[in-house]
Amino acid sequence: MTNAPAGPGPLDGEGFSRYQYGDLLRYCCGVLENLDVPADDARHVAECLLYSDLRGVDSHGVIRLPVYARRLQAGVVKARPAVAVERSFGAVALVNGDNGLGPAVGARAMETALEMAAASGIAFAGVRASNHFGAAGYYVQAAVRRGYIGCAVSNAPPNMAPFGGRERFLGTNPIAVGIPAGAEPPLYFDASTSVTARGKIIVAAQRGLDIPEGWAIDPQGVPTTNARQALAGAVLPFGGAKGSAISFLIDILCGVWTGAAFALHLNTLEDLGSVQNVGHVFVALRTDLFLAGGEFGRRMDEILGMLKASKPAPGVERVVVPGEPEAWREAENQALGIPLSPQTVAELVGLGAEVRVEFPPPRAAHCEQKEPSA
Amino acid sequence: MTNAPAGPGPLDGEGFSRYQYGDLLRYCCGVLENLDVPADDARHVAECLLYSDLRGVDSHGVIRLPVYARRLQAGVVKARPAVAVERSFGAVALVNGDNGLGPAVGARAMETALEMAAASGIAFAGVRASNHFGAAGYYVQAAVRRGYIGCAVSNAPPNMAPFGGRERFLGTNPIAVGIPAGAEPPLYFDASTSVTARGKIIVAAQRGLDIPEGWAIDPQGVPTTNARQALAGAVLPFGGAKGSAISFLIDILCGVWTGAAFALHLNTLEDLGSVQNVGHVFVALRTDLFLAGGEFGRRMDEILGMLKASKPAPGVERVVVPGEPEAWREAENQALGIPLSPQTVAELVGLGAEVRVEFPPPRAAHCEQKEPSA
Repeated sequence: MTNAPAGPGPLDGEGFSRYQYGDLLRYCCGVLENLDVPADDARHVAECLLYSDLRGVDSHGVIRLPVYARRLQAGVVKARPAVAVERSFGAVALVNGDNGLGPAVGARAMETALEMAAASGIAFAGVRASNHFGAAGYYVQAAVRRGYIGCAVSNAPPNMAPFGGRERFLGTNPIAVGIPAGAEPPLYFDASTSVTARGKIIVAAQRGLDIPEGWAIDPQGVPTTNARQALAGAVLPFGGAKGSAISFLIDILCGVWTGAAFALHLNTLEDLGSVQNVGHVFVALRTDLFLAGGEFGRRMDEILGMLKASKPAPGVERVVVPGEPEAWREAENQALGIPLSPQTVAELVGLGAEVRVEFPPPRAAHCEQKEPSA
Repeated sequence: MTNAPAGPGPLDGEGFSRYQYGDLLRYCCGVLENLDVPADDARHVAECLLYSDLRGVDSHGVIRLPVYARRLQAGVVKARPAVAVERSFGAVALVNGDNGLGPAVGARAMETALEMAAASGIAFAGVRASNHFGAAGYYVQAAVRRGYIGCAVSNAPPNMAPFGGRERFLGTNPIAVGIPAGAEPPLYFDASTSVTARGKIIVAAQRGLDIPEGWAIDPQGVPTTNARQALAGAVLPFGGAKGSAISFLIDILCGVWTGAAFALHLNTLEDLGSVQNVGHVFVALRTDLFLAGGEFGRRMDEILGMLKASKPAPGVERVVVPGEPEAWREAENQALGIPLSPQTVAELVGLGAEVRVEFPPPRAAHCEQKEPSA
């Protein structure tokens, strides 16, 4: 969520190479399948990770594949979970993720919500016994493709201080909403409830750079611009007390309401000795209940057009629709390839060697291969 | 939503007198009934306004009764609307407010959502053809009292610039969520999607005070601390791009999805020549679907206790639960009376004289009356 035009991403920089989407998809699926993940599940996980990379949200992209693999190898995530609707009542279902990979569980639960919403107009699918599910925005695409409004929320391990606090208590609990339009592209809102991704602070610390005020506090609870102090402390919720409350509400819905873990009970992704029991909620809502014959799409086109035509602030080219800059980045990365850092590539090459899946060459190499040989 | 202990409210100050809740309730009901509003509807409107005053959110309290009365007198709001469920499908209903007073329409729609959710677990009641509905938090109380999670959102006329914009486009579209607990008091989150209430800027302008940075922009879109320039310009959404997107999503749900007015189509409360056609959405969700025998309440008590026990930032006494400071204020105002400014009292005395309903004496006068006469 930025207002900036599509340019180099926050993790873009020197030494980055671009890789074709299809090549990375095959690589990710191959790694997961060789770790005993069924092909359909592997594809959801791979698509979810690459959805983030395409949209420039590198922190939730293929950079996470190694830790997913480590968790499978350590046995704290199941490769072949028995994901099932544990209970259902009216327009609400509880999906038991049986400790499977988050994107495989999440895609199934969003599907359940969509099936129920066809008959009930609205449906809620709560999920317990799941894991880190990557970018929330991945799931709402399935709803939008079928003309539904989709929403996905998840809780997450404590990384963030609540408003007025100094200790990590809240997750960066993400929320995504997708809304189809008529002639206009759909609206995709996808955001964490922190001011900024922790990944950006990690990068700043690696480069010895300061971070802007308001992103984080040090271990004593004092606002800091020192990236290392920030990493030792906690990130802050977006929007002060209001954003802190929204993050807390997401934890209550995903954790308390579903029967999953919540707040300080949630273990981190990096803790290879403990299951996570993450909770999610997926919502599907029909758009054709009150307005006939494409009227919803026409009204969406109107409000999106109004927003884009709203006068910009000084120095801003145009007011953007939520998700619009990420869609520009997606088009660019589909065309030019997904940029990956040398560190990420090295890690993926190593992982591939370990599970006997070759990491693909960068896109430039593809181009060279197409030239006639001398 | 503040983290401050309950103290004098933002509109509290010199010359304020305190009035008993029951006295103000009778006065408000009397005024509305004399303007032909049925007793039940009048009571919802009066309770909604006083809910705000009790909780220290004076901007949405009895200060709004005069403009509600003017709109009834001008015929742009109906005193006796035929509020009805226009359509329903599964767990979703569309309530047509028939241009009645917002709180009367809203209370009826929340009731509809609760009735449907009993059978379907979750229910959405969309509303069109309504009006300004006061504090969103008023409605979710009905859900919490019956053990449901309740949510209320509304769109509102443009007062706020979108992120990256300089023109008023978004309403301060409020959101409220109420969640019952076990032994702990329920959680009530009730917030506008602006950084601050426009009412606070009006007060600052009246007193010739500056406002903090980040609250508003001037008519050229430049951030300003000058209250008068801010009133001529626009308030800003909370949380930058993310809060701006959330406000926009609320307008899409309440306006675009329901068939109500949206964005620049929404007329202000003060425009006595035009109907508003405001849209709302009310959600009711059962808490007993996945957890048996009070387990949800016990888990709520645990997470609320965890939050309160989280270490506070320097200078903060304790981390508070969303809505907790407002609950303290409510207890204080119930005990001591609701403080009203001399200007508000003068306006209400005048309105009362016009419709032949006497405005009550302040609480101190009550106490004096109880003393034995000399």
